[in-house]
Amino acid sequence: MLPPIITSLMSELGKLPGIGPRSAERLALHLLQSPLDSVQSLAQTILQARNTILNCTLCGALTETQICLLCLNPRRDQTLVCVVERPVDIINLEKSNVYHGLYHVLGGRISPINGVGPDDLRISSLEKRVSEGVIREVIVALGSDVEGDATGYYLAKVLAEKNIKVTRLAHGLPVGSSLEYADELTLGRAIQGRQSIND
Amino acid sequence: MLPPIITSLMSELGKLPGIGPRSAERLALHLLQSPLDSVQSLAQTILQARNTILNCTLCGALTETQICLLCLNPRRDQTLVCVVERPVDIINLEKSNVYHGLYHVLGGRISPINGVGPDDLRISSLEKRVSEGVIREVIVALGSDVEGDATGYYLAKVLAEKNIKVTRLAHGLPVGSSLEYADELTLGRAIQGRQSIND
Repeated sequence: MLPPIITSLMSELGKLPGIGPRSAERLALHLLQSPLDSVQSLAQTILQARNTILNCTLCGALTETQICLLCLNPRRDQTLVCVVERPVDIINLEKSNVYHGLYHVLGGRISPINGVGPDDLRISSLEKRVSEGVIREVIVALGSDVEGDATGYYLAKVLAEKNIKVTRLAHGLPVGSSLEYADELTLGRAIQGRQSIND
Repeated sequence: MLPPIITSLMSELGKLPGIGPRSAERLALHLLQSPLDSVQSLAQTILQARNTILNCTLCGALTETQICLLCLNPRRDQTLVCVVERPVDIINLEKSNVYHGLYHVLGGRISPINGVGPDDLRISSLEKRVSEGVIREVIVALGSDVEGDATGYYLAKVLAEKNIKVTRLAHGLPVGSSLEYADELTLGRAIQGRQSIND
């Protein structure tokens, strides 16, 4: 009984992450009853954003220009490179406001099960950037599961030949969390990585 | 540091109901990393749906045609009209698959506080439909708060002159719910409206 265009709108919206059938229905009916100009503005912004955004040719971040603002910023520490899986990770790391070096997006993690090998990732371009001699330290900021660890070790092995430091993010308790919610592996890593508070 | 078009995409998505800042960010980044054709298809469906959908000139339901499929369906009971607030309510009532009459969308509820009077609602077109003589019963399916009740009583008063039956939806326990979660007003209405189970 529902007009078919409403059904297709719901199914399009239902493809988005975190939008189930009920949310899709709610969004669709909201859009149908919104002023025409606000709906047009939404649709145009979606298209424009998707068409405008590129991947930085140097680091792979999301950008509107060939080379991203992070790579072009002379005030960022040019000797530090943080390796992340996806462009999105850069946005989250930037929010922490602690890191002021450059980035490099791998585009994935080594995963033999899914047929992803080192050649499928942006590893050779990382090696090339490191070969230029400015970079002193590569920080591996990948998830700490099997694939993330494997990718980290692979990078460490490859980059060891270039004689630079390779580090990874610390493991430990999330800030603001209590001991009872931490699993034993995390607690073990937190003890191994304990830090002095009296000097 | 975020390209401005991403920020505007997030703010556009954040205007949608039930989409907070974090969901908006997640959706925006998902869209930016989706294949171009799927993003185009989403934007086009949004625009097309908004441009195609009209309100039925008879009942006010969402439709692709001047007169909606519900009004045009000869198998629906032409003597019954269910009065709802918004076109969306029709979709929910249709899902219950219990009602097979016609609908009439009021477009709101009488609310002196918000400056909504009977003349702001589609009441005269309802009176006109009733005057045609086919309709025998008007079911008021509005929310059961002060404004919904006031609107219902107003409709009953207006339609009493036409000598037709005016009913409202039953109050009672939601199906599948236990007594402990029902408030005392609902329980009181459920007792008043109790129904025989042995005949």
